[in-house]
Amino acid sequence: MNLPDGYRFAGIHCGIKPALPDLTLVVSDGPCVAAGVYTTNLVRAACIDWNRSITPAVDVRAIVVNSGNANACTGRQGARDNEAMADGVASELGLGPGAGRKVLVLSTGVIGRPMPMETVQRGIAAIGRSLASELAAFQAAATAILTTDHSRKTASAEFSVDGQTFRIAAMAKGAGMIGPAMATMLAVIVTDYPHSPSTADGAIREAVDQSFNRISVEGHMSTNDAAILLAPTGGTDATPGRAVFQERLNAVCLELARMIPTDGEGATHLIEIRVRGASSDQAADRIARTIGLSNLVKTAVAGADPNWGRIVSAAGFAGVPFEVGQVSLTLNGIHLFENGEPLPFDPGLTSRVIREKRETLIELSVGHGSGAAWHYTSDLTADYVRLNAEYTT
Amino acid sequence: MNLPDGYRFAGIHCGIKPALPDLTLVVSDGPCVAAGVYTTNLVRAACIDWNRSITPAVDVRAIVVNSGNANACTGRQGARDNEAMADGVASELGLGPGAGRKVLVLSTGVIGRPMPMETVQRGIAAIGRSLASELAAFQAAATAILTTDHSRKTASAEFSVDGQTFRIAAMAKGAGMIGPAMATMLAVIVTDYPHSPSTADGAIREAVDQSFNRISVEGHMSTNDAAILLAPTGGTDATPGRAVFQERLNAVCLELARMIPTDGEGATHLIEIRVRGASSDQAADRIARTIGLSNLVKTAVAGADPNWGRIVSAAGFAGVPFEVGQVSLTLNGIHLFENGEPLPFDPGLTSRVIREKRETLIELSVGHGSGAAWHYTSDLTADYVRLNAEYTT
Repeated sequence: MNLPDGYRFAGIHCGIKPALPDLTLVVSDGPCVAAGVYTTNLVRAACIDWNRSITPAVDVRAIVVNSGNANACTGRQGARDNEAMADGVASELGLGPGAGRKVLVLSTGVIGRPMPMETVQRGIAAIGRSLASELAAFQAAATAILTTDHSRKTASAEFSVDGQTFRIAAMAKGAGMIGPAMATMLAVIVTDYPHSPSTADGAIREAVDQSFNRISVEGHMSTNDAAILLAPTGGTDATPGRAVFQERLNAVCLELARMIPTDGEGATHLIEIRVRGASSDQAADRIARTIGLSNLVKTAVAGADPNWGRIVSAAGFAGVPFEVGQVSLTLNGIHLFENGEPLPFDPGLTSRVIREKRETLIELSVGHGSGAAWHYTSDLTADYVRLNAEYTT
Repeated sequence: MNLPDGYRFAGIHCGIKPALPDLTLVVSDGPCVAAGVYTTNLVRAACIDWNRSITPAVDVRAIVVNSGNANACTGRQGARDNEAMADGVASELGLGPGAGRKVLVLSTGVIGRPMPMETVQRGIAAIGRSLASELAAFQAAATAILTTDHSRKTASAEFSVDGQTFRIAAMAKGAGMIGPAMATMLAVIVTDYPHSPSTADGAIREAVDQSFNRISVEGHMSTNDAAILLAPTGGTDATPGRAVFQERLNAVCLELARMIPTDGEGATHLIEIRVRGASSDQAADRIARTIGLSNLVKTAVAGADPNWGRIVSAAGFAGVPFEVGQVSLTLNGIHLFENGEPLPFDPGLTSRVIREKRETLIELSVGHGSGAAWHYTSDLTADYVRLNAEYTT
C-alpha cells in the first residue's frame, strides 16, 4: 500500500477509552479540498453539524477523529466541545487565529455522554509529535478510529494518468449501528489527485452510493456517520483521468464497505444479496435491503438453516410490486424456488454449504424488469446480542 | 370466561407436528357473518387468498386452522390443498355440495413445504367428534393454533344492552415473524352480538388498527397473518350497543396483542413505547415503530443497559421531522434527556429498574404537536437468536 503525497497521519491513546488508541489526526501539508457525505439522522452528533457547515471546502488542513465518545445527544455543551477540538488542533498546527474551521472533526462511540475535554485536549496537544507520512503512521491513525471493530479497515488504489502516478488511501470503522438510507459510518479518504470542491463532492457521493449506502449490520442509522474525501486543490471536471479516479475511488469504498458487515458485531457470515428483474434499480434496492434487515433471514444464516421462506416473505413486504409467480431464488447457487413454485432440495446439503462458507450468496429474481441491486449484511448471532446487551454497562 | 352462544370448538393433534396439537375447528351453529383483516405481504399463503375472496360474508359456517405448516410459497399445489381442506370440512359438517366456500382456512408454521394432506384430511375426518361448546373445547382450540408460543392466548368480554347479555371470546397465536404495517398474526374472534358484513368488517379493522397492528417481535411481516371475526347475522349500524361492542372488541384485541410480544421468542421484557408531541398520530406511530424495531434498543433492554442514546437516535431516522431541541425521554419514569440536553442520572439504578421489571416503559416527547402513538415489542435476547437459527433444521 503506497500512500498519496502531501499528508501526515497519527493515531494515539489519549484516555477516552481505558487502554486502546482513541485519537487520530490526518493533516494535509497544504490547504486541500474536502467533501463529505453525512448521516441523515435528525439526531446528529455535534461533529456532523460542524463538518456539514464547512464542506465542500477548498482550505481544509486537518481531520481530527476521536473514538470512545460520539459527542451526540450532548446538547449545547457538545457543540462547544466540538468547536474546542477543532480550535485546539488549529492552534497546535499553527494555522493562525480563527483557523478552527480548517479542521474537520469526527467522533464515534457512546451517545449521550459529555466529552472528557481535559483528556481530549491533552491528547490534541500531544498527537502532533506522532505525525508522519509513513505507512505505520497511517495504520496507527486507522486503528485509533475503531470502536467495536475487530480489525483495521484500510484500502488503497494507485493509477497513472499521462505518465503521472496518483494514489488513494482510505480508512474506515464500523461494526455496529450500521444502517442504510444514510451516508455511512466513518471513512476518511485521502488522495493526491487534484479536485475542486464540486468534483470532490460529486466523487464522494457517487462512491458512497455504490458502497457504504448498501451495507447494514442491524439497520440502526448512526448519529455520527460520515465519509470524507481530502484532495489537493486545482482539479476541474476536465482534469485528465477523472473517470479513472472515480472508478478507483468506487472500488476502494466498496472494498471498505464489504469489510464492515464482514466484521459486523458477532457476525459469522457476510450475506450478499443480489436482486434482479425488478421494475427499477430502486425497487430492487428496497427488496435487497428488506431481506438484509430481516432478523429472521439473518438468524437463519447464522444457524445454517435453509429456511428460504423467510427470504421470499421478506421480499414480499418490501413495499414494491412484483408477481410471486415470477419469483425465483437460489442460495449459494442451490435452486430453491422457481417461478413461484418450491423446488425439491436437500436441506442437509444446503445447510452444510451455508455452514462451511464465510459468505452466503442470496440471489432473487422477481420478474423480467431490468432493475437490479445488491446489499451486504451480517448474520445475526447470539454474540451480537451479548455484545449489544452490555455495551455501556 | 363465558363463551358466546352459537359456536362449537375443537382442537386436536392430527400429526402435522410430531406430538403437539395442530388442528383447530370453530363451527357456527348457523350461517354467520365473517370479516377479516389479512397480511399485506405480496407473498401470501394459500389460505389468505382463499379467505380474502370470501370475506366479508354472511353465510360462513366454520374456520379450520392448522399449525405446523404455513402452506405458503407452495405454488399451485398449495392452493389446491387449501381448497381441499375447506371442502373436507364442509363435507364432514354436512353443509351440502359446493359448501367449501362457507369454510375459512388459516394455516401457520414453516413456509415452503407441501401440506401433508393425507394427515390433514385424516384430522378433518376426526375433529368433528371433539366439537363442543364448553370452555375446555375453546381452550383446546386455542392451544392447537400455537406454534412457537409458550402460552395460550385468549381474551373475552361480556356486556349488556337493554338487559340482553352479549359475549366476545377470542384466541390468538404469535411469538415470532411478528411485524407491523400488516394485519396481524392469527386471531379468531367469535361473538353473539349481531352484525352485517359491513359492520363486522369495520369493527375488525378498527380493533386491529388499535391492537395487532401496533406490535412487533422482529418486524418481519408474515405470509399468513389474519384476524377474523365471526358474528350472528341480523345486525346493522343502528343495532343498539354498537359502540359498546366496538369498545369491548378493541379491548379484547389489545389484551391479546400485548400477549404476543410478551411471549415473543426468547423475550425477557415487554417494551412499551409511548410517543407524544408529534405533528400527527401517524408521525408518532412511525417514530414508535422505528424505536420498536431497533435491534440496538431491544438488545439494550435485554441487557438492562441504560444506553438511551439508541432510543433517541432511532427516533432520528424514523423519517418524520422534529426538533432535537424539543426532545425529552424518560425510561421507566427516570428522566434521561430533556429538550435536547442530557440529564445526569444513575446508570446503576436505571439498569436495576430495567432488570427487575418484566415491562420497560419508554416515553418520548418530540415536540408540542398533538400526535401520539404507542407500540409494544419484545426485547432481543440470545435465546431469540438460538430459537431462530434452528427453526427448520
